[in-house]
Amino acid sequence: MSDAAVARRSRMSPEREAELYEAVLGLLGEVGYEALTMDAVATRTRSSKATLYRQWGGKAELVVRALRYQKPLSLADVDTGSLRGDFHALALCQDDCQVEQTSALMRGLATAVHSNADLLRAFRELLIEPELEELRRMLRRAVERGEIRADNPAMDYVLHMLVGAIGTRTLIDELPPTQDFLLSYIDAVVLPALGV
Amino acid sequence: MSDAAVARRSRMSPEREAELYEAVLGLLGEVGYEALTMDAVATRTRSSKATLYRQWGGKAELVVRALRYQKPLSLADVDTGSLRGDFHALALCQDDCQVEQTSALMRGLATAVHSNADLLRAFRELLIEPELEELRRMLRRAVERGEIRADNPAMDYVLHMLVGAIGTRTLIDELPPTQDFLLSYIDAVVLPALGV
Repeated sequence: MSDAAVARRSRMSPEREAELYEAVLGLLGEVGYEALTMDAVATRTRSSKATLYRQWGGKAELVVRALRYQKPLSLADVDTGSLRGDFHALALCQDDCQVEQTSALMRGLATAVHSNADLLRAFRELLIEPELEELRRMLRRAVERGEIRADNPAMDYVLHMLVGAIGTRTLIDELPPTQDFLLSYIDAVVLPALGV
Repeated sequence: MSDAAVARRSRMSPEREAELYEAVLGLLGEVGYEALTMDAVATRTRSSKATLYRQWGGKAELVVRALRYQKPLSLADVDTGSLRGDFHALALCQDDCQVEQTSALMRGLATAVHSNADLLRAFRELLIEPELEELRRMLRRAVERGEIRADNPAMDYVLHMLVGAIGTRTLIDELPPTQDFLLSYIDAVVLPALGV
């Protein structure tokens, strides 16, 4: 379901929607994805399950939209005038609170790739693809400014580099993906690979 | 437990050990990590559970040693004389069969980071750390040959780059980490980040 479709079909105010997403994120932190039920969301938010299903279709979409609502890594509003600046803005938009959210996002993704096809599909359609589209736009601007060559093969691998950094740091090293870590990785890996 | 400790305490021939690991990998493919039991391993390999526990300590270590036995990405024997050659050898040692094994390895790692602290610890100690040690040795040789600067910050992120490539490709794109893919990623990302 597109954002427009959600807006069209929604009788909720943005405030009410935010309240719902925050409840979902709270439950997710408490019980994890597998044990989270639409009943529990309905109870905590004093909504009917029918409303939840009508608005979001199912658990996977509701959870991913809640994670997306946090937008720890959103690129849509970033346009600093240089590629280095854009990537640094991406790292710096992570305040301390969002570091925890980014970790939650990576744990959610691990759950999805581990065992839940619906959740993985929702992640791909609602979180990864829209961010990749913004990333491609950011890279196109850098190409137009002459900062990277149009045929630089690393442009196809920016997602791999970023998922590698944040995923390995969070899930294997079990350390927080702090601003310092992200800035260091961007300068050491992402920009050199892109020839900047 | 170190390899030496396993060898010392083992009354098994290498052939018998290989047979056991293959049975474990077969079961892992059929039922997944959570549903795999030491009973099933004992039955399939006509061993006693006591022998399995004496030799491996538990399920997590047995499974990771079986995955390590496949060694799809082993670096220990690679020394081509150039860093590009070493990384390419790493990609090329993946034949078609090992691509499937590498995917199994990433799925196992996703299981571990998702839900199993024992398995994650075994992955770290028995698979990731030994390979990282080989990787550091490979990079030191490149520093000594003057191919990379001793203070290149990307040296700390080689694991992140490789896990990002193979993990994103396998688990998010759901495509096989083929030789062509790995060679392309190494040339586009890993070597430029290292300044080669």
